[in-house]
Amino acid sequence: MTDKGTGLPDYADLPAAAHGGRSAWGLFGADDNLGLVNLMTADRIAAAARLVRRGQVFCLDMPLGSVSPALATFRGAPRHHVLHTPGTAGFDDVYDNFYPQASSQWDSLAHYGYLPDQLYNGATEAQVLAGTRNTIDHWARHGLAGRAVLLDVERAIRAAGRPYDPGGPVAINVEDLELARRQAGVEFAPGDVILLHTGFAAWYVRQPDQVKRRLHGNVIAPGVAHTEAVCEYLWNSHAAAIAADNFAVEVFPADYDPAAHPFGFLHHVLIGLFGMALGELWWLADLAADCTADGVHEMFLVSAPLNAPGGIGSPANAVAIK
Amino acid sequence: MTDKGTGLPDYADLPAAAHGGRSAWGLFGADDNLGLVNLMTADRIAAAARLVRRGQVFCLDMPLGSVSPALATFRGAPRHHVLHTPGTAGFDDVYDNFYPQASSQWDSLAHYGYLPDQLYNGATEAQVLAGTRNTIDHWARHGLAGRAVLLDVERAIRAAGRPYDPGGPVAINVEDLELARRQAGVEFAPGDVILLHTGFAAWYVRQPDQVKRRLHGNVIAPGVAHTEAVCEYLWNSHAAAIAADNFAVEVFPADYDPAAHPFGFLHHVLIGLFGMALGELWWLADLAADCTADGVHEMFLVSAPLNAPGGIGSPANAVAIK
Amino acid sequence: MTDKGTGLPDYADLPAAAHGGRSAWGLFGADDNLGLVNLMTADRIAAAARLVRRGQVFCLDMPLGSVSPALATFRGAPRHHVLHTPGTAGFDDVYDNFYPQASSQWDSLAHYGYLPDQLYNGATEAQVLAGTRNTIDHWARHGLAGRAVLLDVERAIRAAGRPYDPGGPVAINVEDLELARRQAGVEFAPGDVILLHTGFAAWYVRQPDQVKRRLHGNVIAPGVAHTEAVCEYLWNSHAAAIAADNFAVEVFPADYDPAAHPFGFLHHVLIGLFGMALGELWWLADLAADCTADGVHEMFLVSAPLNAPGGIGSPANAVAIK
Amino acid sequence: MTDKGTGLPDYADLPAAAHGGRSAWGLFGADDNLGLVNLMTADRIAAAARLVRRGQVFCLDMPLGSVSPALATFRGAPRHHVLHTPGTAGFDDVYDNFYPQASSQWDSLAHYGYLPDQLYNGATEAQVLAGTRNTIDHWARHGLAGRAVLLDVERAIRAAGRPYDPGGPVAINVEDLELARRQAGVEFAPGDVILLHTGFAAWYVRQPDQVKRRLHGNVIAPGVAHTEAVCEYLWNSHAAAIAADNFAVEVFPADYDPAAHPFGFLHHVLIGLFGMALGELWWLADLAADCTADGVHEMFLVSAPLNAPGGIGSPANAVAIK
Repeated sequence: MTDKGTGLPDYADLPAAAHGGRSAWGLFGADDNLGLVNLMTADRIAAAARLVRRGQVFCLDMPLGSVSPALATFRGAPRHHVLHTPGTAGFDDVYDNFYPQASSQWDSLAHYGYLPDQLYNGATEAQVLAGTRNTIDHWARHGLAGRAVLLDVERAIRAAGRPYDPGGPVAINVEDLELARRQAGVEFAPGDVILLHTGFAAWYVRQPDQVKRRLHGNVIAPGVAHTEAVCEYLWNSHAAAIAADNFAVEVFPADYDPAAHPFGFLHHVLIGLFGMALGELWWLADLAADCTADGVHEMFLVSAPLNAPGGIGSPANAVAIK
Repeated sequence: MTDKGTGLPDYADLPAAAHGGRSAWGLFGADDNLGLVNLMTADRIAAAARLVRRGQVFCLDMPLGSVSPALATFRGAPRHHVLHTPGTAGFDDVYDNFYPQASSQWDSLAHYGYLPDQLYNGATEAQVLAGTRNTIDHWARHGLAGRAVLLDVERAIRAAGRPYDPGGPVAINVEDLELARRQAGVEFAPGDVILLHTGFAAWYVRQPDQVKRRLHGNVIAPGVAHTEAVCEYLWNSHAAAIAADNFAVEVFPADYDPAAHPFGFLHHVLIGLFGMALGELWWLADLAADCTADGVHEMFLVSAPLNAPGGIGSPANAVAIK
Repeated sequence: MTDKGTGLPDYADLPAAAHGGRSAWGLFGADDNLGLVNLMTADRIAAAARLVRRGQVFCLDMPLGSVSPALATFRGAPRHHVLHTPGTAGFDDVYDNFYPQASSQWDSLAHYGYLPDQLYNGATEAQVLAGTRNTIDHWARHGLAGRAVLLDVERAIRAAGRPYDPGGPVAINVEDLELARRQAGVEFAPGDVILLHTGFAAWYVRQPDQVKRRLHGNVIAPGVAHTEAVCEYLWNSHAAAIAADNFAVEVFPADYDPAAHPFGFLHHVLIGLFGMALGELWWLADLAADCTADGVHEMFLVSAPLNAPGGIGSPANAVAIK
Repeated sequence: MTDKGTGLPDYADLPAAAHGGRSAWGLFGADDNLGLVNLMTADRIAAAARLVRRGQVFCLDMPLGSVSPALATFRGAPRHHVLHTPGTAGFDDVYDNFYPQASSQWDSLAHYGYLPDQLYNGATEAQVLAGTRNTIDHWARHGLAGRAVLLDVERAIRAAGRPYDPGGPVAINVEDLELARRQAGVEFAPGDVILLHTGFAAWYVRQPDQVKRRLHGNVIAPGVAHTEAVCEYLWNSHAAAIAADNFAVEVFPADYDPAAHPFGFLHHVLIGLFGMALGELWWLADLAADCTADGVHEMFLVSAPLNAPGGIGSPANAVAIK
């Protein structure tokens, strides 16, 4: 029904996973390391490139170091050294403490498993540590490109006359996503990148240091709700990826209680069972403003994640072109 | 004559610089930090996107760490830690010793000055160290996208029946560049990215460790010749960038003798006077093979360099789409 | 009265500092960068060496990485790489994220000022950043050696029949210090290192991970009380240094309220005004047990802090020899 | 004969190792990880402490970063960040690229094996990588303290009227060592630290940058000769350690030809077979000058290497006290 030429089953027809959720393991072959990025086919990329009209490029990466102190406690800002001998013409640089997920970023399929030792498509802890399964280099070699659709949830909720706090733990449910989609005037197509604009990043950068410090290790941010309905909605969209301007795509704080798993924590399901690409802390404010201005919410998106053997995450390295 | 709608003077009409070479300083305004990337205009980007036919994506970044031991002595391979608590489902990672120019990379306009304390457009050492002029974030915010043309110098020289050593110090002169351009069947257009395929990177990765160790700090690689004719040719192409699969775009060893400057070392001229974007150690082998196969040597190129405040270089983060 | 041959005034005769506390600036000359380490004279060191009887050496450094997650949020555990090519006989190693204060450590006189831009003996922020004043290399070149006396506060308080929690915010006041000193049977002598055994480190290493995580950025630990009486007591001891097995010598949480300064936060006074060497997170458990066993609470102490130009802190690199 | 109460056999009575050299494996038990540091017994340490007369402390560590560019190519200078928020009173610091062997240092018994996978006392590659055998923390917990004797080879050879180049590849043989020992007026005693003054470090720090760059990866330095006679001499001394002011204790360049092993490269024998502690790049110039001045060449030596679990090397963290 929602196949749309993908050959993929509807959510309802996916096999149930042992501890909750439904699993896409094996749909792209036993050796697959790409997950839903397989839906970014050449034909769809060529079609998406034709969405470029004006040629305007939007940088979707926040500056390195702009999320500091870290939201996830350990991911401190990069330390940057410029190497230069005074009186010479050359300059070089080097980074230490470079957490590829410290600012705008991709989670590879090696970032989170469904369960310990059970990552997407049956990859094991040992395979991830050896860098042979699910790591970011698989996406880098394939290339991340295609159609993106922007869902401006912040604007849609406000337009509906409801209060909205981009710095609060707003659980965005299916109705909110549909509201934003209808407002955008788009249908989902297979291989899409859903760009979820919650307003969090733009809110964050305006905060004084004391507020940023309070969030250090105690993140509060809007995001999609921890419900099976959200999982079903995202699967049936046949999007390859969802990239948001918030901390973790899903609302935070998340319910880490094991009893609540897997629907209390969507990373387990979206990454570990579906093989969906998650982007976080993307800078969508300028793009969202442009979409509001011209009414066009679909665009061409290209990202070149680090070609990092064994890499778990990567800076987003993403641009949208309208 | 070679204006092609850019409003830029021919090389012969550029003002002479004090110590040799010709200068483009001021052509894009006194405050410009983009250089010839200014030629990547929306119109040209929109036109370049229409070059996408099949939708095939080529990753132009070599794997991180694949140039080891370093060619430039100090730029060692990144140190990569996977952070994982056994028995949990999550994985994270962090890099130290992350030299953004250690593998496929961009030189920002802060990488090399024309002279000490005289960087592109009059930027000073202090401004580069403060991160306010010429650094990589200026390009990241603007976006690097447009038409690329591949010049397969290795194939062109071999096709002409001349010997060619991709591991040797081959000085590629204007005639060689023209030979490759005609073979490609392309004309240069303003804002282009010239992709220079010398065969070095593909040769390098096939070498045993002992050969790689011999190159550590003693680089030998083909590249464009250190001649004013090359400078003139590149300027008059009105390309925004030239990205090669070799160590430094220009042939190595370079003549560092101050008496030979500036035509003994092209970085000073191309970066410091022209404001041209240089890409190095790009992986062009697969793209070049495809161009040979289908005869199409122009394509859409998109790169998202690190949005790194004060950054000197960046991984290439580049894809070509045909 | 308490001069003991040092030529130093009693606390009561020190000049009052502008914002509270009393200042020792200038007592060792305007250019001094050693502070009370000046009291570690050759004569006293030679005398202290004669305290060695059995020749038993006590390592006073906890293992690197044993305080993790960090107590001070940012001081994460070092990242350690072993460099080894399989099949060869050689091994090397390298550390990143090496916070010299992450485990057993010295605070140099550059670690804390009395006020911003007013460090010990009038050193400025700029001088500390330039590495010319008060940094750890001054002590490294001088050498830290002399008599140590162990005050086992934990044992003394318990022996007095009072409850004591080595994981609690116990404010150790002058009476407690005197109790421990009398129990030890020692008098203070100029240039001494006071070893303050609170039991915190031994308690900490026994805690489960969840307790350690709770302390991350929210430290609770016994230590000397934030009172002028403590400052007076320590000054009049004419000790050169005080090294404790707790987080910060002084009790934590400290009262950071500016209104409470300087007696709410002893670092400002002890380091910034007195020029006293503070050691923290030292491993004193084995030494304390030995002192209890043989009744000898004085010993020879030698430490070789990192000879780090511009260094702020250092691993303790300390041994006690009885 | 040369037992001197150690219970150890003479060199001639050590069992021959399979590929040359003689082996001390097993002499201190099958599980030993200390090697000849076992000879640093409490009695000997107590006796050595009595060598302290004046109480003068000599810092034997060169400043961090003073050997730059690295002698061993990869061991670059540490990168040091001072962490400070302007307007506050606190300062902290952190190191990246901290090679513990980049300046004055100890080689642990995990630094070099006799053969691949055959480290001192039968430790395996896997055990070293797991940090369970031979690593530096074993010495840190035991403490390195005892009698040191300074052999001023540079002065002895010059005094004998022979030319001597502290920047040259001078192979110091047994006769030279004996010459220096007799000049010093000392006999070796079990557990000693032999301090070998070649003059290299003092020569090195006086060189201009271009000379230092030439040595980068191409070290030339005086040191003990690659002969079995040297091995025999050092074993029969029953010293626990030999620490030199040169690159590698032994002369460089060394003969790495496998055919020349083991007597072409002493690390294999001294560390891998004997379990002797080697110190390198120590700063002995001031101490040697003092010994010349007062004629006393024996002293108390204390070092507290990093208590680094799994550590291969450590800064020397050493002081001599006379």
